[in-house]
Amino acid sequence: MVPGGPLSRGYTGRMTPGERVRIYEVGPRDGLQNEVRPIATADKARFVGLLADAGLREIEATSFVSPKAVPQLADAEELLRTLERRPGVRYPVLVPNERGLARAEAAGAEAMAIFTAASDAFARANIGMTVDESIERSRPVVARARELGWWTRGYVSTAFGCPYTGRVAPERVVEVALRLAELGVDEVALGDTIGVGVPAQVADLVGLLAVAGLAVERLAFHFHDTRGTALANVVAGLHAGVRCFDASTGGTGGCPYAPGAAGNLATEDLVYLLDGLGHEHGVRLEGVLAAARFVAVVLGRPLASKVGQAGGWDPATGRAVGRE
Amino acid sequence: MVPGGPLSRGYTGRMTPGERVRIYEVGPRDGLQNEVRPIATADKARFVGLLADAGLREIEATSFVSPKAVPQLADAEELLRTLERRPGVRYPVLVPNERGLARAEAAGAEAMAIFTAASDAFARANIGMTVDESIERSRPVVARARELGWWTRGYVSTAFGCPYTGRVAPERVVEVALRLAELGVDEVALGDTIGVGVPAQVADLVGLLAVAGLAVERLAFHFHDTRGTALANVVAGLHAGVRCFDASTGGTGGCPYAPGAAGNLATEDLVYLLDGLGHEHGVRLEGVLAAARFVAVVLGRPLASKVGQAGGWDPATGRAVGRE
Repeated sequence: MVPGGPLSRGYTGRMTPGERVRIYEVGPRDGLQNEVRPIATADKARFVGLLADAGLREIEATSFVSPKAVPQLADAEELLRTLERRPGVRYPVLVPNERGLARAEAAGAEAMAIFTAASDAFARANIGMTVDESIERSRPVVARARELGWWTRGYVSTAFGCPYTGRVAPERVVEVALRLAELGVDEVALGDTIGVGVPAQVADLVGLLAVAGLAVERLAFHFHDTRGTALANVVAGLHAGVRCFDASTGGTGGCPYAPGAAGNLATEDLVYLLDGLGHEHGVRLEGVLAAARFVAVVLGRPLASKVGQAGGWDPATGRAVGRE
Repeated sequence: MVPGGPLSRGYTGRMTPGERVRIYEVGPRDGLQNEVRPIATADKARFVGLLADAGLREIEATSFVSPKAVPQLADAEELLRTLERRPGVRYPVLVPNERGLARAEAAGAEAMAIFTAASDAFARANIGMTVDESIERSRPVVARARELGWWTRGYVSTAFGCPYTGRVAPERVVEVALRLAELGVDEVALGDTIGVGVPAQVADLVGLLAVAGLAVERLAFHFHDTRGTALANVVAGLHAGVRCFDASTGGTGGCPYAPGAAGNLATEDLVYLLDGLGHEHGVRLEGVLAAARFVAVVLGRPLASKVGQAGGWDPATGRAVGRE
C-alpha cells in the first residue's frame, strides 16, 4: 500500500504527505552532554560527519555553557575548529550568555540556540535563575547573534511538565514562547524535558500559540520518548502543521531525572515514521543507523532506540534493514 | 491543562475524550508463549489475578494449541482450573482447531480466539497451512463456540507486513478480515506482527474496512512496538473510531523474527497514553505496574516497557509514580 493514500485524511491534518519536514539533530550536544566519561573531540567530529553523511542538515554540534557545568563539552572551540563543515549544513551551538556568544563567535559559529524553561523551579535548579532572568540574559545574546547574521533558536524546557512542580499550564508555555519570539529568534523549540506529554497537549499548545500569533512555521518540538509517546506526539505535531522535530541519533541523552529511562526521541525512530508517512526530509535511515552504531561504540553500550535494535524494514522483501 | 480541551479537535477524530476504550490484555498468552524456561502454573495464575486486580476485564489467559508447538502453555487445562475467575472478567483462550476447542470446553473456557494471517507465506511458516485452509479449519470451531454462547475473536496476523514477503496489500487484509467476520466472530483483531505499521496505514485499513461493511465496533488492533510506532498507531486507531487495543503487561512477548527488539505494546504504556488523552478504560496504572514487576521477577529480567522503566507521572507533584 502507499502510505498516505486517499483514505488517510484522518491523520494528516494540515500537513499533506510529501510535504517536507525538518529533522533537527541534537545528538552531538544534547545527546552527549551528560556523558561522564570523556569522549575524544575527534570522535565527536566523526559523529557529526556521519550525521551529515546521512543527510542531516541541522546538527546542533556543541555548547558554549561553562565547561564547569558541562565538562563533556569543554572542547567546544576545538570541535568547531576540527569539524569539516559541509555546504548547506547548519551547525548551531548552545549559548547561555554574552560570554558564551563571544566564545562561539571566536570559534566560528554561525547559528545558535538560547534556552529557558516554562517552569521557574526547573530554571532555578538547572541554570540558577528564574525564567524571567534567563530571558533577560538572552536578550543581548540574540540581538548580537542577529547582528552577526546568525540563525537563532530559543528552547523552552518543561513545556509539558516539570519534575519539581508537575503540570505546566499551556498559557504559561505560550507566554514564554512569545517572549522568546519577541527577542527575535528564528525558531522556538518546545521541549518535553521529562517525557510526559501526550498528543492532545501538542494539539492544544499549537492551537493556543496560533491564537497568540506565533506562526507554526517558527515552531519546533523537542520530544522525549520517556513514556513511549514521542512518535504519537510527532504525529499530533504534523497534524497541527508543525514542520520541525528534534531527535538524537542513537537515542542518546535525555533527562537525568529518570534514571534508566529513555530520553531523547531517536533520530532513527523519527526517520522510520516519517518515511512510512511519506514525508520528505532528506535523511537516509541507513546513514543514521551507521552514525548510531558509531556512537554506541564510542559510548560502549548498546543502542537504546527501537529502530536501532530492530532495524528498518524493506517492504519489498519483508526483511529488516540497517542492522549489522 | 485538561487534555482534550476545546483546541484538541485535531486528534480526537470520531472518538471523543471520555469515551470508553477496551484494553485487551494478551500478556499471559501472547506474552509468555515463547518463553523457553518453564513458568509455574501458579505464577501464571497469580499474574492473571494481578491483571484483574488492576482492572483489566479481558485477559487472554492461555492457548489450546498443541503442547508440542507451544510447550510453555501445555498447562492450559490446569491454569483454567486454578484460575480464580472474577465476575465481569472475560478470559479468552486461543483455539487452533476442533480438538483445541474440545479441550478448552472441557476446561471450562467461555471465550476464545481463532487465528489466521493476511500472508500465505507467514501462515505456512507459522501454522503449516494456507490462509484459506486456516479459515476453513476455524469455521466449525467458531460455529461450535457460538452454539456454546462464547464470545469469539479472530486474529489476522501480518496485517501490516510479512517477514517473508514484505508489504501486504490492505485489500488482502480487508478480504481476510471480512471472511473471519462472516464466520461469525464477535471481533476481528488486526495484528502488526512484526511491528512495521505507521498511522497512515491504520487509517487506511479502518477506512477500507468501513467501505467493505465491517463496523468499527467489531475491530481491534494488536500493535507491536518494534519500531516505536505503536502508540502513534493507537492514536490513529482512536481517530478512526476503533475502541479496542491489545497490549501485554510488562511488554512481554512479540515477534521471534526480530531478536532483541521490542514486541507487544506494553499495557502500562497504553494506559499512560489513554489516561493522558482522557479516555476511560477502567484500568489502574499502578496495578498494571505491580503486575509488570511480578512478571519481570518471574522471567528474571528487567522490564522492557517505557513506563515500566520511567514510571507514570503525577501532574500534581511532577514526580514519577509506580516505580519501586
